[in-house]
Amino acid sequence: MDKNAPIGVFDSGIGGLTVAREIMRQLPEERLIYFGDTARLPYGSKSRETVIRFSRQIIRFLRTMEVKAIVIACNTATSYALDEVRKDEDIPIIGVINAGARAAVSATKNGKIGVIGTNGTIDSGTYEEVLREMKPSVEVFGKACPLFVPLVEEGLLHDTVTDEIASRYLSVLKEKYIDTLVLGCTHYPLIRSTIARIMGNEVHLVNPAYETAVQLKTLLKSMEMNRDEGQELLQSEKYQFFVSDMAEKFRGFAISILPDEVKETVKINIEEY
Amino acid sequence: MDKNAPIGVFDSGIGGLTVAREIMRQLPEERLIYFGDTARLPYGSKSRETVIRFSRQIIRFLRTMEVKAIVIACNTATSYALDEVRKDEDIPIIGVINAGARAAVSATKNGKIGVIGTNGTIDSGTYEEVLREMKPSVEVFGKACPLFVPLVEEGLLHDTVTDEIASRYLSVLKEKYIDTLVLGCTHYPLIRSTIARIMGNEVHLVNPAYETAVQLKTLLKSMEMNRDEGQELLQSEKYQFFVSDMAEKFRGFAISILPDEVKETVKINIEEY
Repeated sequence: MDKNAPIGVFDSGIGGLTVAREIMRQLPEERLIYFGDTARLPYGSKSRETVIRFSRQIIRFLRTMEVKAIVIACNTATSYALDEVRKDEDIPIIGVINAGARAAVSATKNGKIGVIGTNGTIDSGTYEEVLREMKPSVEVFGKACPLFVPLVEEGLLHDTVTDEIASRYLSVLKEKYIDTLVLGCTHYPLIRSTIARIMGNEVHLVNPAYETAVQLKTLLKSMEMNRDEGQELLQSEKYQFFVSDMAEKFRGFAISILPDEVKETVKINIEEY
Repeated sequence: MDKNAPIGVFDSGIGGLTVAREIMRQLPEERLIYFGDTARLPYGSKSRETVIRFSRQIIRFLRTMEVKAIVIACNTATSYALDEVRKDEDIPIIGVINAGARAAVSATKNGKIGVIGTNGTIDSGTYEEVLREMKPSVEVFGKACPLFVPLVEEGLLHDTVTDEIASRYLSVLKEKYIDTLVLGCTHYPLIRSTIARIMGNEVHLVNPAYETAVQLKTLLKSMEMNRDEGQELLQSEKYQFFVSDMAEKFRGFAISILPDEVKETVKINIEEY
């Protein structure tokens, strides 16, 4: 395995860019190949079987780019596909759930943890399972928030409608007196301030994007797979972006999150993989 | 061509069921095969090229079922794909736009017509083009309403949030003094009452689902392709439903629209076609 090879990162669309951003910050020497499945997004409302099939196709594509490790930067795909795809592959694959769960378990004082995510992520029960494995005494309260993704994608980040929908979704979690809330969908950090205001100062918000980059750093170090820092690269060689549709629209959104890192976005037909 | 063959109807997901319902009402003797692309929905935010590719796969699937005609029961797919797929096929294919446009042109008195739909439908400009071909003097005002589909799919049909979002979207059309509004997305008839209240009594709402069934009826008659009325069929043979994902969830929603007509829903892998 070539330690100068890139890291593959994928998501159903744009949300995983928040994970890519954290990896770029914490592992500035690493190369990264991002894939967003914009032709088939969202994943949050689709079945386990379909999300596994889509994830396998994407991993086949990323492997043609000779990545040294893969980060599933999507909570739904991690919930449904991580264990399955790990069986088939000989490179390390990590998701966003373990890291987020670990941070939540460290943060909670009263043992009551809330998790918000897509229908798929919440229905899968993966967060609950992982959290209880780490600390069997925790109580976990999951709540699907299916309108958050379309509201974020419409740009209503600071809007009375988003406030109203968030109040409705989060009220059941407030009633449980959780002290820690996992933002279990990569879009949700973009409305973090709304969620924080509704939940109140006493509730600790966990962003798995940050924790996942920490985990990746530890993993690469332990495998001695960090990229040689001396090797110079053009920005366009260092970070590459691929999508299955709407390359220009994706690029516009990606630049708003990663102003200096996104040079071009290439569209591929993922169904061929 | 076998006049006892079924009619193929397809949509990105559930919205086209409102078109299927109208066909069942107006053509009660006809057999119907419905396909909803639930693995890859929604289409409204995807590109022309991708929507054409998806539509071609679905038509290949429907042709394996030996349909005698195809109805594209999705405004986005009609906008982008109808002209393209017609070139390749030797059976009649109709979309939802021509019929809706014809009804709008008949209804308008002041020549100011509004069209609401997905980003794809509005960006394509197809309604405007078709409306102006039918009556060059009309003024057409398009407005994309991308949050309507997720709000409907969340079941917020009568809700203050839907009212608020609808007021924002429709205010630009009210300012233009339109007297006719085309509900240019198959989900929108499900929030017709909200749209009607905001637009006011003086604005005529056009539902292309109804008009499309009228067009299909005329077409089959003119081709002498109506099914023989005498031939008895089981309900499960008469109406068949296929999807690319989430068959059970689809079936639940379909039953809410077509309580007696939906017996089972079969999942297929559309990417193989």
